[in-house]
Amino acid sequence: MRIGILGAGQLAQMLSLAAIPLGHEVVCMDPTDQPSAHNVATIIKADFNDRIALERLASSVEVITFETENIPVQTIDFCQSLKKTPNRLALEITQDRWLEKEYCRKLKIPTADYWLIKTPDDLKRALGTCDGPSILKTRRFGYDGKGQITLAANTDVTDVWKTFGNHDLILERKISFDRELSCFGARDQRGNSCIYPLTENQHIDGILHCSQPRQNLNQALYQQAHDYLNKLMESFNYIGVLAIELFQVGDQLIVNEMAPRVHNSGHWTIEGAACSQFENHIRAITDMPLGSCDPMGYSAMVNAISVEPDIMALCQIPYTHWHSYGKTPRLKRKLGHATVHCLTQDELKKQLNQVCTLPPFDRGHRN
Amino acid sequence: MRIGILGAGQLAQMLSLAAIPLGHEVVCMDPTDQPSAHNVATIIKADFNDRIALERLASSVEVITFETENIPVQTIDFCQSLKKTPNRLALEITQDRWLEKEYCRKLKIPTADYWLIKTPDDLKRALGTCDGPSILKTRRFGYDGKGQITLAANTDVTDVWKTFGNHDLILERKISFDRELSCFGARDQRGNSCIYPLTENQHIDGILHCSQPRQNLNQALYQQAHDYLNKLMESFNYIGVLAIELFQVGDQLIVNEMAPRVHNSGHWTIEGAACSQFENHIRAITDMPLGSCDPMGYSAMVNAISVEPDIMALCQIPYTHWHSYGKTPRLKRKLGHATVHCLTQDELKKQLNQVCTLPPFDRGHRN
Repeated sequence: MRIGILGAGQLAQMLSLAAIPLGHEVVCMDPTDQPSAHNVATIIKADFNDRIALERLASSVEVITFETENIPVQTIDFCQSLKKTPNRLALEITQDRWLEKEYCRKLKIPTADYWLIKTPDDLKRALGTCDGPSILKTRRFGYDGKGQITLAANTDVTDVWKTFGNHDLILERKISFDRELSCFGARDQRGNSCIYPLTENQHIDGILHCSQPRQNLNQALYQQAHDYLNKLMESFNYIGVLAIELFQVGDQLIVNEMAPRVHNSGHWTIEGAACSQFENHIRAITDMPLGSCDPMGYSAMVNAISVEPDIMALCQIPYTHWHSYGKTPRLKRKLGHATVHCLTQDELKKQLNQVCTLPPFDRGHRN
Repeated sequence: MRIGILGAGQLAQMLSLAAIPLGHEVVCMDPTDQPSAHNVATIIKADFNDRIALERLASSVEVITFETENIPVQTIDFCQSLKKTPNRLALEITQDRWLEKEYCRKLKIPTADYWLIKTPDDLKRALGTCDGPSILKTRRFGYDGKGQITLAANTDVTDVWKTFGNHDLILERKISFDRELSCFGARDQRGNSCIYPLTENQHIDGILHCSQPRQNLNQALYQQAHDYLNKLMESFNYIGVLAIELFQVGDQLIVNEMAPRVHNSGHWTIEGAACSQFENHIRAITDMPLGSCDPMGYSAMVNAISVEPDIMALCQIPYTHWHSYGKTPRLKRKLGHATVHCLTQDELKKQLNQVCTLPPFDRGHRN
């Protein structure tokens, strides 16, 4: 089968690496030069709203998926009119923080308190109601901590408005959480689903630093996370991998945001799960049965941000796998990730500590 | 780094799939149309003795390796004159069954008795000396049971000579073995080496059917196999993955043949070992440290020969991975392989039995 992907970054690269052994070929459409997927997929270089390029993509594949939620809904509608393109609703909802929160409220999935902000007065009023630390975010196109600012209840609105006033905005109560978790799984075209172990994430400066699946959490947390993910997948009639980022506050899980795609916190599944998130997404969109989400031992993933690690030193650490995205280094850019995968937790701890002595992984992590 | 591979079949495909996450790009040279590696490597379509194409290959890569031993030595010499191309001696020796046996004898590595055959009289005399079942083989270009015939002591030489007389030949005593094993490992540019668990192989009609790493064999077998492999790797000053096929007769291991490359019996290492044979070959030739050869749980691999399996049915079996080579089905052609990878031996047995109910895997296997 030929699979089309909107976007050709590292997620498309890893989707292709999973698709090829299954016998598929991949065609990606992306506006950038030499994107990560360029040596595992045919690349159509074009903007996401280029109709002619979209027609070319659609004519050469049987199904179209996306590696980012920042795709115009019109593009998806156009793709849908030409080829099978699942998850339009999930895309529309998740690319807008306001719609996402409203959708969760409708499904009775808890989120932080939030306020739609259209004017400086809206912001002033919301800050008063919130009466504590909050985060002002652009409704769209924010990722990796971009497009957001933390505010105190008494922040002067005028200055903030100068920077953010030309965007659609949402104010969210800042949650004081015990930890960050993510829950992700896959749903196939018959409605079967499977969910990976809850994964604990550490962010530094708003960018994911380290992810580790946790197999020994309080059962109540699993139940909540599975309940949220299943509700969302069913209400979206979702096909493929869906991820939700969560805050744990005591025994309660609160949804922070979601992503209608494979997720950075699931990269450990390449080595660490029976079937990776990438293979399960491909299986789902090509109407194949899902693979098992069971963990195979113990794993952790660390992102390489801004600078490349010393690959020689990294590969000297046993049970450590390097995944290069083939990108030119740039500040705050994700250049690759390292996964440590062991059969025991003690071994994982030992080797992960080794990895986290090497730049750029040496920014601290929680075992 | 850019890596050149002579050949673009499934071994080159899987080498590329391992090289890309390490940040490398691959260029393959191969005379066939749409070879397996075509969607993970740049392909130069040319015969192995095409000097201009070899120059083009060499000018676009930093190191050249090969996925088959059936490469003219002159090609390797020419490549060596242009770029780093390890393992010339191993290639020269292993592409000729006579040289291979003589080389083993020199290193005091046991093989079956063998006789160089140049005339019908040589054959008659050797059959008499052997005085039992033997196998007449072409010295070169035989693989997957091609170019060989089993003979009895009293076989009429005249008929055999009509078919085989125009080849360089070797007669080998037919070994009555308890089982077939393979031993393969990698050696890096500093002379460090690592060896994967001994793997038990079942052949059907001369073609590998099923491979399973064995972790609980008699220690004496490991010692012999490691001794043979280490001797060979050192005497070749070998860089990359080297494989030897062995017959077990009681407590004794006898070398059947060897391959200066990644080997079909090592495909289980993609899921089943800490670092796969493909990644270790790439690490070695790019002067990186080797990864661990430790098994990660329990694995078995089954080849899909002649016909494609029902992928839907196959992927419904838990812990089962399909690896398509993207080839058109043809009699006796290897089209892909399935690996079952589990955390317990019982689970492996259960799922492998499931896989082996599906054609073309249903030709019997030993648990």
